[in-house]
Amino acid sequence: MPDTAAARPAGHGRGPASQAGMRRQNLALVMGAVAEGGPLSRAAVAAGTGLTRAAVSSLVEELMDGGLLAEHAPVASGRVGRPGTGLGVNEHGPAGLGLEIGVDHLAACLVDLTGRVRAGVRVPAGNRGGAPAEVLGRLARLAADLAHDGELRTAGVAVAVPGLVGPAPGTVAHAPNLGWRGVGVGDALRTLLPEPLRSLPLAVDNEANLGAQAERWLGSGAPDAVHVSADAGIGAALVVGGRLFRGARGFAGELGHVPVHPDGPPCPCGARGCLEQYAGVAAVLRAAGLQEAGGDPVAGLARRAARGDGAVLRALERAGTALGTALAGAVNLIDPSAVVLGGAYAELGEWLLPRMGAELAARVAVRPWDPGALVVSPLGRRGPVLGAAMVTVRRIIEDPARYAAA
Amino acid sequence: MPDTAAARPAGHGRGPASQAGMRRQNLALVMGAVAEGGPLSRAAVAAGTGLTRAAVSSLVEELMDGGLLAEHAPVASGRVGRPGTGLGVNEHGPAGLGLEIGVDHLAACLVDLTGRVRAGVRVPAGNRGGAPAEVLGRLARLAADLAHDGELRTAGVAVAVPGLVGPAPGTVAHAPNLGWRGVGVGDALRTLLPEPLRSLPLAVDNEANLGAQAERWLGSGAPDAVHVSADAGIGAALVVGGRLFRGARGFAGELGHVPVHPDGPPCPCGARGCLEQYAGVAAVLRAAGLQEAGGDPVAGLARRAARGDGAVLRALERAGTALGTALAGAVNLIDPSAVVLGGAYAELGEWLLPRMGAELAARVAVRPWDPGALVVSPLGRRGPVLGAAMVTVRRIIEDPARYAAA
Repeated sequence: MPDTAAARPAGHGRGPASQAGMRRQNLALVMGAVAEGGPLSRAAVAAGTGLTRAAVSSLVEELMDGGLLAEHAPVASGRVGRPGTGLGVNEHGPAGLGLEIGVDHLAACLVDLTGRVRAGVRVPAGNRGGAPAEVLGRLARLAADLAHDGELRTAGVAVAVPGLVGPAPGTVAHAPNLGWRGVGVGDALRTLLPEPLRSLPLAVDNEANLGAQAERWLGSGAPDAVHVSADAGIGAALVVGGRLFRGARGFAGELGHVPVHPDGPPCPCGARGCLEQYAGVAAVLRAAGLQEAGGDPVAGLARRAARGDGAVLRALERAGTALGTALAGAVNLIDPSAVVLGGAYAELGEWLLPRMGAELAARVAVRPWDPGALVVSPLGRRGPVLGAAMVTVRRIIEDPARYAAA
Repeated sequence: MPDTAAARPAGHGRGPASQAGMRRQNLALVMGAVAEGGPLSRAAVAAGTGLTRAAVSSLVEELMDGGLLAEHAPVASGRVGRPGTGLGVNEHGPAGLGLEIGVDHLAACLVDLTGRVRAGVRVPAGNRGGAPAEVLGRLARLAADLAHDGELRTAGVAVAVPGLVGPAPGTVAHAPNLGWRGVGVGDALRTLLPEPLRSLPLAVDNEANLGAQAERWLGSGAPDAVHVSADAGIGAALVVGGRLFRGARGFAGELGHVPVHPDGPPCPCGARGCLEQYAGVAAVLRAAGLQEAGGDPVAGLARRAARGDGAVLRALERAGTALGTALAGAVNLIDPSAVVLGGAYAELGEWLLPRMGAELAARVAVRPWDPGALVVSPLGRRGPVLGAAMVTVRRIIEDPARYAAA
């Protein structure tokens, strides 16, 4: 995957430990403590990290010089005496630019170091079967518009795509709902972006992976989760110990092609009875007797279900059962602490969750299955683009020395 | 899981980086380089690790004093001049003691730092429904006999059990084929072991997890694998980047209860159509019209299949198809570089693999599925006890400073 090595936190390398490596690791320690718990006094940072006061002062000075930390209002220490100055991450410093190519939309957003969205845009777009150059040209214009922020400095770009990314960095191996195969999205987009965006770190990743990242840092926060991201297709991301689990080639999470009924209907992938044949949006529309009419089919299903449309309710029950069966297999294999329903399908949670929960309860061998472990993402379909923006934010927080050196 | 924290390699902690931490990390770097590539000259270690010659000399001296490295015959450096002395791991130093509780057997083995088996024993035992105190008492006697080696110093003990271990360290949450639930195997075994074994690090782990460890270090070596371990039950271990992936509670790898036909026959776990209802040894015997007769049912199936017994061949084909369906889901989710058939079922590979391979080829969405990625473990049913012994060996190699301090 792109940036796997680059995103590795300081101090985890296999090379010899050195003074420079120690400094880098301790900068990350201070940055992480303030990002997680700030505003904090220098004394609180020292207490929380185990570093000396003198070391913290020196490290904080370097992080402030680099524009990553800022002094906030004084913080009461709870002791007698002068309150210490509050340190927080700098909300006027570097920012992450997130981009998203959906089947029916494009999106972009800018997120500051605190994780706050400072600007965002989402536009309808008929990308199914679209020529990569055209889709990426339009995306580059959105990116250029959004990155013009006088106060923030865009420090990196990441793009969410509805398909498999890798093993070549930045390359979409297969995005069936776009009709793309072997498209070098990273390289192509770079040539279309204006400076300074063109010279920044640029990552391309699967939308479910990025949705799961957003969920980790801005949403429900579960450190070990199967994050389902369903829209035109059904993908999943596996989060383990707070980090994405990508598999050997970066293709982990193909939940949509887990067999549910091995002798079921044929799937365009070549197999039979895949989850997408029961729970993909096209399958749900078919089961409900509806035509695919473009626009926003998930929102349409939610409207009909809310009105009590019997055919739609039955189709969603069937989809929920199939999702639950496939997820029961995933939970037995992976033992996550949470199963998160994200992407556009988060809006169908009311109708999908009961059957999903029943299947999980019946099929997870390791009792007790905790019914509270199945949740709907609060970020829903905004997840992937937020996660794309958070790639840069997290990279800076986890290895501030690398950012400062860039 | 027990020992997850203890087994963490040096330098990956969240505390501040320190001089002592650097030394510890560099000891591990040298130890790892010699264990992987030895015998090596000091110059080759310096070149391979990026450390200075002076640093390597000092680190090597410490490792030799601790009995972890030893001088071998001189190694030609390929350059003009005196050949350097060859450094290797000490084959007369610390060793790992592996123990195994099977449904029908007990086993123990002693492995030295080079990974060579120095002593081993395997005895039949009717452990199904056995009282833990009796089973563990017999195991403790095997352990005490085997650990009496004048040359080697047993430095740690690990036990493979056919069930779920955790979340409390050393506790078997559920071993259905033994009939054990909530058994504190680690604590109970410790009281039964003689000194000095009683005072050593003692880990308890699932047999599939340990079989996969053995496969990683002594077998096919794939760093990213789904390792199937089938005998009385069907378990799996997930190996990621060379390390076990355990899940949030340590219960990952419950392949036997992945749904294969959601409306299939009922399973004692409470669900329907689990893999074990098609591919577990009891299900295969049933499908072949055979009685469970004790002894070694897997060896019996292999004998009948080799003789061309039609009912057994059909039952194994059905089992292979079900294994392939469940593994196709696992491969789509986890994207391993290898699927390894281990445990006793490795002896049935000839009859299981064709259908397993066909299902994987048909159902793995990310083409091309590499048929060579499906392999039979060369260790077979010896895997778990070897893996148990390797727990201690790998712990010493990955963090020699911790061993020296113990």
